[in-house]
Amino acid sequence: MQRVCFLLKVRADRLDAYRERHAAVWPEMREALSATGWHNYSLFLREDGLLVGYLETEDFAAARAAMEATDVNARWQAEMAPFFTALDGARPDEAMKPLTEVFHLA
Amino acid sequence: MQRVCFLLKVRADRLDAYRERHAAVWPEMREALSATGWHNYSLFLREDGLLVGYLETEDFAAARAAMEATDVNARWQAEMAPFFTALDGARPDEAMKPLTEVFHLA
Repeated sequence: MQRVCFLLKVRADRLDAYRERHAAVWPEMREALSATGWHNYSLFLREDGLLVGYLETEDFAAARAAMEATDVNARWQAEMAPFFTALDGARPDEAMKPLTEVFHLA
Repeated sequence: MQRVCFLLKVRADRLDAYRERHAAVWPEMREALSATGWHNYSLFLREDGLLVGYLETEDFAAARAAMEATDVNARWQAEMAPFFTALDGARPDEAMKPLTEVFHLA
């Protein structure tokens, strides 16, 4: 099992709307994440918009590729893109660069 | 179970040493963390020194307090303090301010 952590940045003027959207993620999106291997997946938001993602998966590259192949992901990411800064034209899911795990305690 | 995420900043000139220290955390420190309720605890390091901590615990305030009461924590935090920036005189463990979880999928 891989533990994956990535960072994104939410626009400071969209924090409330971002929170609201993530309190009501489409059931179809949640089901697609589970079906493609995204487990124990949390998003944490700092007051300035820094967003931390954490998940556990068998193979992150495979989980990303499987999710990218779903229609619901394309629709969700298109709606989420305006919430983020500095994505350089990439979709939010494409900008998820995993950080290196330097310590783990079960 | 609470899922906790916090951020710290490692000095850019100490990244290699920080990695080395965390590949060899004292067994006594690992045992104290487990005994005081720090579970599934990971640290992730970005190349610029941003450090993300993630853990699961019954009660983070209680887990922090129990850890603070151990001798090994005082020794470990004293050795770790010089690795961090902008701690304003606080020990690294005192600077762990949890971020708000805005999404979770089991």
